[in-house]
Amino acid sequence: MAIKTKEEYIESLRKMNPVVYMFGERITNVVDNPRLRAGIEATAATYEAANMAEYRHSMVTESPLIGEAVNRFTLPPTSIEDLVARVKNNRMLGGRVGTCFQRCTGLDCMSALSIVTYNIDQKYGTEYYARFLEFLKHVQKNDLTCNAGVTDVKGDRSLNPHEQPDKDMYLRVVERRHDGIVVRGAKAHQTGSLSSHEIIVLPTRALKKEDKDYAVAFAIPTDTPGLIHVVGRSTLDMRELQGCDIGNTKYSKYCPTVIFNDVFVPWERVFMCGETEFAGDLVMRFSAFHRQSHGGCKAGKIDCMIGAALTMMDYNGTAKLSHLRQKIIDMIHRAETLYGCSIAASYEGKRQSSGTYFIDPVLANASKIHEGKEMAEVGRLLVDIAGGYVCDLPSDRDLANPEIGPLVMKYMQGAAGVPVEDRIRMLRLVEKLALESADTVSDIHGGGSAEAHRITIMRETDLEGKKKLSKRLAGIED
Amino acid sequence: MAIKTKEEYIESLRKMNPVVYMFGERITNVVDNPRLRAGIEATAATYEAANMAEYRHSMVTESPLIGEAVNRFTLPPTSIEDLVARVKNNRMLGGRVGTCFQRCTGLDCMSALSIVTYNIDQKYGTEYYARFLEFLKHVQKNDLTCNAGVTDVKGDRSLNPHEQPDKDMYLRVVERRHDGIVVRGAKAHQTGSLSSHEIIVLPTRALKKEDKDYAVAFAIPTDTPGLIHVVGRSTLDMRELQGCDIGNTKYSKYCPTVIFNDVFVPWERVFMCGETEFAGDLVMRFSAFHRQSHGGCKAGKIDCMIGAALTMMDYNGTAKLSHLRQKIIDMIHRAETLYGCSIAASYEGKRQSSGTYFIDPVLANASKIHEGKEMAEVGRLLVDIAGGYVCDLPSDRDLANPEIGPLVMKYMQGAAGVPVEDRIRMLRLVEKLALESADTVSDIHGGGSAEAHRITIMRETDLEGKKKLSKRLAGIED
Amino acid sequence: MAIKTKEEYIESLRKMNPVVYMFGERITNVVDNPRLRAGIEATAATYEAANMAEYRHSMVTESPLIGEAVNRFTLPPTSIEDLVARVKNNRMLGGRVGTCFQRCTGLDCMSALSIVTYNIDQKYGTEYYARFLEFLKHVQKNDLTCNAGVTDVKGDRSLNPHEQPDKDMYLRVVERRHDGIVVRGAKAHQTGSLSSHEIIVLPTRALKKEDKDYAVAFAIPTDTPGLIHVVGRSTLDMRELQGCDIGNTKYSKYCPTVIFNDVFVPWERVFMCGETEFAGDLVMRFSAFHRQSHGGCKAGKIDCMIGAALTMMDYNGTAKLSHLRQKIIDMIHRAETLYGCSIAASYEGKRQSSGTYFIDPVLANASKIHEGKEMAEVGRLLVDIAGGYVCDLPSDRDLANPEIGPLVMKYMQGAAGVPVEDRIRMLRLVEKLALESADTVSDIHGGGSAEAHRITIMRETDLEGKKKLSKRLAGIED
Amino acid sequence: MAIKTKEEYIESLRKMNPVVYMFGERITNVVDNPRLRAGIEATAATYEAANMAEYRHSMVTESPLIGEAVNRFTLPPTSIEDLVARVKNNRMLGGRVGTCFQRCTGLDCMSALSIVTYNIDQKYGTEYYARFLEFLKHVQKNDLTCNAGVTDVKGDRSLNPHEQPDKDMYLRVVERRHDGIVVRGAKAHQTGSLSSHEIIVLPTRALKKEDKDYAVAFAIPTDTPGLIHVVGRSTLDMRELQGCDIGNTKYSKYCPTVIFNDVFVPWERVFMCGETEFAGDLVMRFSAFHRQSHGGCKAGKIDCMIGAALTMMDYNGTAKLSHLRQKIIDMIHRAETLYGCSIAASYEGKRQSSGTYFIDPVLANASKIHEGKEMAEVGRLLVDIAGGYVCDLPSDRDLANPEIGPLVMKYMQGAAGVPVEDRIRMLRLVEKLALESADTVSDIHGGGSAEAHRITIMRETDLEGKKKLSKRLAGIED
Repeated sequence: MAIKTKEEYIESLRKMNPVVYMFGERITNVVDNPRLRAGIEATAATYEAANMAEYRHSMVTESPLIGEAVNRFTLPPTSIEDLVARVKNNRMLGGRVGTCFQRCTGLDCMSALSIVTYNIDQKYGTEYYARFLEFLKHVQKNDLTCNAGVTDVKGDRSLNPHEQPDKDMYLRVVERRHDGIVVRGAKAHQTGSLSSHEIIVLPTRALKKEDKDYAVAFAIPTDTPGLIHVVGRSTLDMRELQGCDIGNTKYSKYCPTVIFNDVFVPWERVFMCGETEFAGDLVMRFSAFHRQSHGGCKAGKIDCMIGAALTMMDYNGTAKLSHLRQKIIDMIHRAETLYGCSIAASYEGKRQSSGTYFIDPVLANASKIHEGKEMAEVGRLLVDIAGGYVCDLPSDRDLANPEIGPLVMKYMQGAAGVPVEDRIRMLRLVEKLALESADTVSDIHGGGSAEAHRITIMRETDLEGKKKLSKRLAGIED
Repeated sequence: MAIKTKEEYIESLRKMNPVVYMFGERITNVVDNPRLRAGIEATAATYEAANMAEYRHSMVTESPLIGEAVNRFTLPPTSIEDLVARVKNNRMLGGRVGTCFQRCTGLDCMSALSIVTYNIDQKYGTEYYARFLEFLKHVQKNDLTCNAGVTDVKGDRSLNPHEQPDKDMYLRVVERRHDGIVVRGAKAHQTGSLSSHEIIVLPTRALKKEDKDYAVAFAIPTDTPGLIHVVGRSTLDMRELQGCDIGNTKYSKYCPTVIFNDVFVPWERVFMCGETEFAGDLVMRFSAFHRQSHGGCKAGKIDCMIGAALTMMDYNGTAKLSHLRQKIIDMIHRAETLYGCSIAASYEGKRQSSGTYFIDPVLANASKIHEGKEMAEVGRLLVDIAGGYVCDLPSDRDLANPEIGPLVMKYMQGAAGVPVEDRIRMLRLVEKLALESADTVSDIHGGGSAEAHRITIMRETDLEGKKKLSKRLAGIED
Repeated sequence: MAIKTKEEYIESLRKMNPVVYMFGERITNVVDNPRLRAGIEATAATYEAANMAEYRHSMVTESPLIGEAVNRFTLPPTSIEDLVARVKNNRMLGGRVGTCFQRCTGLDCMSALSIVTYNIDQKYGTEYYARFLEFLKHVQKNDLTCNAGVTDVKGDRSLNPHEQPDKDMYLRVVERRHDGIVVRGAKAHQTGSLSSHEIIVLPTRALKKEDKDYAVAFAIPTDTPGLIHVVGRSTLDMRELQGCDIGNTKYSKYCPTVIFNDVFVPWERVFMCGETEFAGDLVMRFSAFHRQSHGGCKAGKIDCMIGAALTMMDYNGTAKLSHLRQKIIDMIHRAETLYGCSIAASYEGKRQSSGTYFIDPVLANASKIHEGKEMAEVGRLLVDIAGGYVCDLPSDRDLANPEIGPLVMKYMQGAAGVPVEDRIRMLRLVEKLALESADTVSDIHGGGSAEAHRITIMRETDLEGKKKLSKRLAGIED
Repeated sequence: MAIKTKEEYIESLRKMNPVVYMFGERITNVVDNPRLRAGIEATAATYEAANMAEYRHSMVTESPLIGEAVNRFTLPPTSIEDLVARVKNNRMLGGRVGTCFQRCTGLDCMSALSIVTYNIDQKYGTEYYARFLEFLKHVQKNDLTCNAGVTDVKGDRSLNPHEQPDKDMYLRVVERRHDGIVVRGAKAHQTGSLSSHEIIVLPTRALKKEDKDYAVAFAIPTDTPGLIHVVGRSTLDMRELQGCDIGNTKYSKYCPTVIFNDVFVPWERVFMCGETEFAGDLVMRFSAFHRQSHGGCKAGKIDCMIGAALTMMDYNGTAKLSHLRQKIIDMIHRAETLYGCSIAASYEGKRQSSGTYFIDPVLANASKIHEGKEMAEVGRLLVDIAGGYVCDLPSDRDLANPEIGPLVMKYMQGAAGVPVEDRIRMLRLVEKLALESADTVSDIHGGGSAEAHRITIMRETDLEGKKKLSKRLAGIED
């Protein structure tokens, strides 16, 4: 049976043995580390929802590949319905976890590979697509979570990969063997790498012929020898570790850098190797899918932020202020814009040669451009509505201190009838929703840079057709 | 045969005899008046497209009501496909005419009536729906254009209709007779009233019990006795009349105020009369459909504006400037946002009791909020890109003057190889696209005020559900 | 006596005999042409104010050059006080005329020349500064208005002046004679050229050595032989000519293209001739002064727009609506931002070698960047507040028509107690303020393109100093 | 001698003995606590600058009150020059410390008191002004830092102070004694309370007659018995405590809640007691001064952010990308807008009855409205430019770990020639500048809520005068 429970998922991670460092120390028990566990719980919510009566119908569908019920997070879209369901599930889950659930990027990789490996095979007679389908069956049958190893560390950004003084600034093949390849490099911002069973690696950019060693795609378990996960710092990273002042009591996010220190990949897991001209298409497909994904989950996160803002208005006694209600509308409007453009991109999707459906890239990028600019504004509005205590609320430990706790509690009172503890909890959640850096930065940089989204919509737009419209009206012979 | 050609449409208008004033004078030949004709041509484009091989498949469909092929502008949506086709046709036509084609509002009225008349009948046992269907058959069989008589002149906006010192500030029933009713009032901003065969009247706002006489909906020919069309002024209204300096050489827009000076309406054309509690729903449905419509046509207008901007870059020798290319992207992004949210509203539509499909009002209003703010920005960007000559280009008549014409032409030269005449034509089109007031103001006020759109998305949003999301994460028992 | 009355000013124009074309016809009586007169009246307001008790103290000061009282519009700033007074007078007058009063650009030219001619002389031992001072005395003693002949028509914008296929796309010296020079070219957007006694010509851009013939500055009377003023079209240009539907009952704006068809300039009026390396500085100084000017007059125009918005709220019965009051605040905020940055640029001015004071260019450009983007938003807000009748109000001639006039008046009623005529007048003013193209486009293109303002603030900013600030805090040795 | 050195300042704090809690524990050595010390260092920078040759001329002036050289942070403005110097010093210091230096709020309180206590005395014959001057002499002679005890915790915001279920939600007089008063309440967001020698308390809002006990202003040492400082949490608060991953290596900010647990204040330190009608004026004056202050320091912080952005471009190899340069311009423009409006507010200041100068409140609030919205955008742009590592950079401890340190360093390389350590330091500074919550939230809530700033500019604007401007132009008799 292909649907894991949340508990089965966590136990499956417990059996893995990745090499992990955090704050300079080796972490051996990933699953029980409170910081990592909060992230794992967010991914676990995708397993939990698949087993809840309320969400099962939207989270689970039958895979045409294995003929079994699977979690949609393992299913490259084979219909418009699949494309739309992605966005709706993402919105539901984004609202439910209030942060990143870290399972869409793996699917975005698989969706891109399910299109591009087929096309490479068509050109070169390779067997990447078949290999990929085998891998996909494995993922579906075992209800695995995959991580997207896309973003290279990049070194000097004015240079192409092969021009870098240190050739490892983009992940590359350093050895080709009869049984597989050896790769070296590092992938940054690997959200959820330790919540994943597999890491799927794609190139991070279009490549030139000279960059042949960098044109590589593959998938390996996250505890493969040579892989090192270095969990970086984010603004609120000590809260779970200290066990206090945790705003989101259930979920969080962490983002390792994953170093590939001469890692062996067997041929059956290699999905591209040297076909440089397909690198750009592969990353473009991945990015477009990922921007579509964000249009769902970030709208869901705003839903949660709106809820927090409204609750703070109830708790502060400001629920009737018209200027705050206007700000709520500003928040709603942004959520619906992200969502509207993303779901439109889905409905307007098109079947590709391999049978996978691809979204409308202009609409998906239109959504992402809004995200990149407007999520920051949503956070600002939330802080504006919630009030200044978002940035300097006394600690839970102050509240628990017998000398000053009662005094602090007294002065944290809000509207009559609201338990002080609840007001404090909600202020803490606002801090997390508005000011946690891993989430905030993904709004801006997730799915590629803002400029990439902009260039994409220009490149994909029929500029000549628009010129013709204007010339006809102006009475100009073309 | 239910599909008229463009020529048949214009001849059908020629047979009508409406009472029309413009600039203080009675106009007897509407069809050949150059200012009105330019507007009629825009509506005619909807007939033309239905007969063009390129667009016929999307413009024409079979009506389940009359079992014949009809122009989609006569078809209240009976499926998701119909809803989506509306937006796509609107975008195509908006780009093709570069202004308002003035035929969607009538359809928006019919779509709203096809939902609400059914519901009134369900409650009161009235026969409005059957009457409406008869009217609709007439429209479909004759391929008619209808005008939306919705916006009352409103008098003192702080007072309800029945509270006004002059009771006629909102259109009302002044007499009930055995064969029909007599109505009095005036409807403002009646874009295309003289391009239409019928005018459909709806209330402009929610009503209270005391406003019973104002709860009236009906349809009558635009040349019914007692109707007076007063064509108002817009910024460029003299250009067609002078026959020079016309930017859009094919199409334009005009907006009469239509006075109902004790007009008789037979009962078979009355679709609501006194059911005040349905007035709000009727106008809300109309507005929501109309906001969806704008998401298509205004995106199409931006397409044309982008084309004009790109062409001006070619003509000025500025095509490679990166800051102007960024502004093109800003224009594209706005077009796609309007369109994306509108088409999403369509795909997410739902079947209503009568069988008509209704769009998602939150997404439709999200689109309109962008329009209200961002169309002005698109116009500003267009002027920025095109250059200062948009506001003070010498007249065609200067160019034709033998003494100075050659000199003026000399100094209007742009990039090498571009005919000066073409550069002048395109500058003139930019003036029309960016600075014609009837279009500009409809961006802001069309489909109701900006505040109405904002209030709608708040009212239609599940605020309590969002609070629950945040409380669960904060660890608050609800 | 150096201070003219308004009447003396108009009579002085009547004595001039410029060559003027409008709509293909030669205009011989400039002063009594209703369209041109409305513009002349706006400039006349600068004479009128100098003679009004209320404004005399700020409008009039003693010139150190001629030792007499002069209108400040003839005085290059010789102190911080002078710089500040410019902005304050501009704001007052901008509010008073509700459009451009067309007299600041000439002063901006004189202010720039009073700095740069001195510097050229210092380098080359020329006598431009002395010539300029003689010209300035003439201007001050006769209280003249000067026009700024800066913006060339430019041809292909990707080419330098000397690279153009037609060498006359930038104004240039075509002949050097013993008694003077002959120039050829055309200057676009010459707002108020016929309200001016003199036209001052400057280069429009930085020049290279090869562009030597284009490095020319001079002043000549506006009726000098060879000058041809071609008055271009703007959106509402027919209103004054038709004598109805004039929103601003007192003032307007017109923008000719002025062609220099081999015009002779005597040496005593030549202020630069061939010193290419000073062209960039001259136009930069002019532009910076002009951007400072706009920070005053455009704030004043917004004052008038706010007044119109508030009055429309009174007339419509919407004065208490909180969302409209928020929009009024948005308008105020924009006015004060323009004004604040401009007046700050003035207070932070610095004395130059010649004794003239120059403003802070970063702050002046900061103001202009806001203008370029935010004036359009102010206009949009005004239309939003005023209502849809801004774009399709029936004509005064409809109101005067005995058959329909009373009916139209009836339906134009607003709040109780407000004369209908007043409501109509104010709607018409809103149309003029928000939708007249000559004003609207000057917000965007006046004082150079938006990109020019942006590049200027970057070029004038101490980027290295800011890097040092950050490195010190990061603990990086520099 | 009235000018302390930085060292003398720190030693003077060491002698104080405030009651402090942080994370539930009592802190007895404030000065050596690394988190608090980083904040104290920021204030110390105001002492240091006064002793540096580069800044002494602007930081130090002679006090007319004590006839000695004083730090300008102890001088209520007695001239336009003083007002302007405040903003310029703030900008310099804001750039120098890259965060809040926490000394302007005390001066803002003193400046407000130096106006309002005089006015109260004029009305009531009280002696508050004399008492205040004695306090001010003490501050000046000892070069003290004062804290602004303004923001009450507020309880239910829909209720006035006396209506609150718990009467202590606004600080109030609970006992009047012959030698002084006893006060109870709590002040929130007391930035720098432990970097200050004195805390100055003002009411936080306008008060009604029934709120008499709340109309109280006074100053007391920050270690007065009954005062409890509870240092709240901010996003990066553990970094200094852990001694690693500190972005700003020199300075930081902390914000306690200060509880007044029945604190005795001697009469000679009471500056208002019961004069409710002056409470609104007092807080308005304070807020206006504080908004002026922010226009300087926040512009200075942006200077530092621009420097960090430019340095990251150098380090990443992206210095030449035009879209990033555009974003730098966007940052500069915002800095100059804040600064321009604030310095304009200063130059436009007016002398008040007591001799103190007050700024123009409209311009000061115009600046603050930009801050409230645009600082968030500046932070977003900084993150956009710097790249994704801002949110998940590995810890200094990872770098120091012998097993993985060299590998992590390898993959953190940027442009050739840039030491990896420097790139890491700058990324860490960006995290601090963009994502530290205490600073971020002060952009939004410092100096009162966004709505307060907006209401102020409307209230202080001559709305009727603007209506008159428009009516005159429309031809309406008023």
